[in-house]
Amino acid sequence: MEQHIVSSYDEELKFILRRISEMGGQAERMVEQSVAALIRSDWGLAQSVVADDMLLDAAQREVDERAIMTIAKRQPMAQDLREIVGAIRISSDLERIGDLGKNIAKRVIATHDHVQPIQLVRGIEHMSELALSQLKDVLDAYATRDHVRAEEIRTNDAEIDAMYTSLFRELLTYMMEDPRNITACTHLLFSAKNIERIGDHATNIAETIYYIKTGRQIETDRPKGDSTPSMTTPERLLTPASGDGAA
Amino acid sequence: MEQHIVSSYDEELKFILRRISEMGGQAERMVEQSVAALIRSDWGLAQSVVADDMLLDAAQREVDERAIMTIAKRQPMAQDLREIVGAIRISSDLERIGDLGKNIAKRVIATHDHVQPIQLVRGIEHMSELALSQLKDVLDAYATRDHVRAEEIRTNDAEIDAMYTSLFRELLTYMMEDPRNITACTHLLFSAKNIERIGDHATNIAETIYYIKTGRQIETDRPKGDSTPSMTTPERLLTPASGDGAA
Repeated sequence: MEQHIVSSYDEELKFILRRISEMGGQAERMVEQSVAALIRSDWGLAQSVVADDMLLDAAQREVDERAIMTIAKRQPMAQDLREIVGAIRISSDLERIGDLGKNIAKRVIATHDHVQPIQLVRGIEHMSELALSQLKDVLDAYATRDHVRAEEIRTNDAEIDAMYTSLFRELLTYMMEDPRNITACTHLLFSAKNIERIGDHATNIAETIYYIKTGRQIETDRPKGDSTPSMTTPERLLTPASGDGAA
Repeated sequence: MEQHIVSSYDEELKFILRRISEMGGQAERMVEQSVAALIRSDWGLAQSVVADDMLLDAAQREVDERAIMTIAKRQPMAQDLREIVGAIRISSDLERIGDLGKNIAKRVIATHDHVQPIQLVRGIEHMSELALSQLKDVLDAYATRDHVRAEEIRTNDAEIDAMYTSLFRELLTYMMEDPRNITACTHLLFSAKNIERIGDHATNIAETIYYIKTGRQIETDRPKGDSTPSMTTPERLLTPASGDGAA
């Protein structure tokens, strides 16, 4: 009987983990494709990203339901319980990453007849490469339950934040130079912000891996989730610059 | 024994619901204060909002942990289970509303020496009043488990979206008219977006109330959570306007 319970827990966990692995692949693809659509002004690709988001939403709901039923039926303890709680958290982060990809895709759809300033789009592309490699690394760390690696990955988020800061400045300067850039740059500004938040969610996943393995939260004063760690930084930096630029 | 289990479940649920009610009050206050800080350029008030966010994060973590333990220990079924799952979802929405309030407050801190264009700040204030009344109504509906009311409230989100659309246009026009407005307007643009997302989270809460009472999801093609229901609208509307404005 004990044996039976244990193996059922294992099977249910395995099912949930397979779903999360699929969700991870899909979230990566959505981000990749939304940025590709932005760069190439590919309206069709952007639309397919928007459509894909429903699948990710459904997958998250399924993981949620299965996880809750597993907790109620199997009453897992200690790391077994943390595995399930961790799965709920990670699937929520992946769903939100998909949402952010969809938001970028929607901007492509809304503005596909605008020409994007090429060097700024390149900045976004570079930033998205960083965020995607962060996401890929953290999903690998999850697959191997490597919480030491997860902790390392987490520190890389500062690099994405720094890129956002620099892109934010650049976009505002560009808007000030020529008002015809304002519409396109506003969309790029929101897209850059979305990518920065993808990095935040990758960081959340790293923290969840640490929690699953150790039962502890990583010591941190990092603001989490929706918050934007470096948000004040670009504005701080910009305040004098914008004053100069606009005076 | 049965009686004992039932009453323990009830006590645990009561504890969780009390925490959520406190979280709701705190999230409301954070949004209210962050917008007040924005309007009055009140740096001190903005800082206290940022500090308060840690309390809301901690409360959410506590609700999560208690809820998971209750599921594992009491194995609630049907509506009892949905009450607990609903509590997890609602506390997550409230935590994110607090985060959005904090993000607005951070923009106040970053730009407190900039003068905000007064009519645009008023637009933000009006939008935040709508979002706050939406939040208050949905928390009342949760307190009384009034899923019919929840369904009604949910439709009000369109009004917030429409205000965001109109404010988005106005802010961009203002930026195009005078590049000196760009920095301040960019912050207001992000603040308006944050408020629009607060409305989305209130809508999520309404959907959760419906789920708790009925066991079903509200039929909807509304994009959820982080997504931005009306995001394409302002851009669609704006595309010709910005062309004109910038030409």
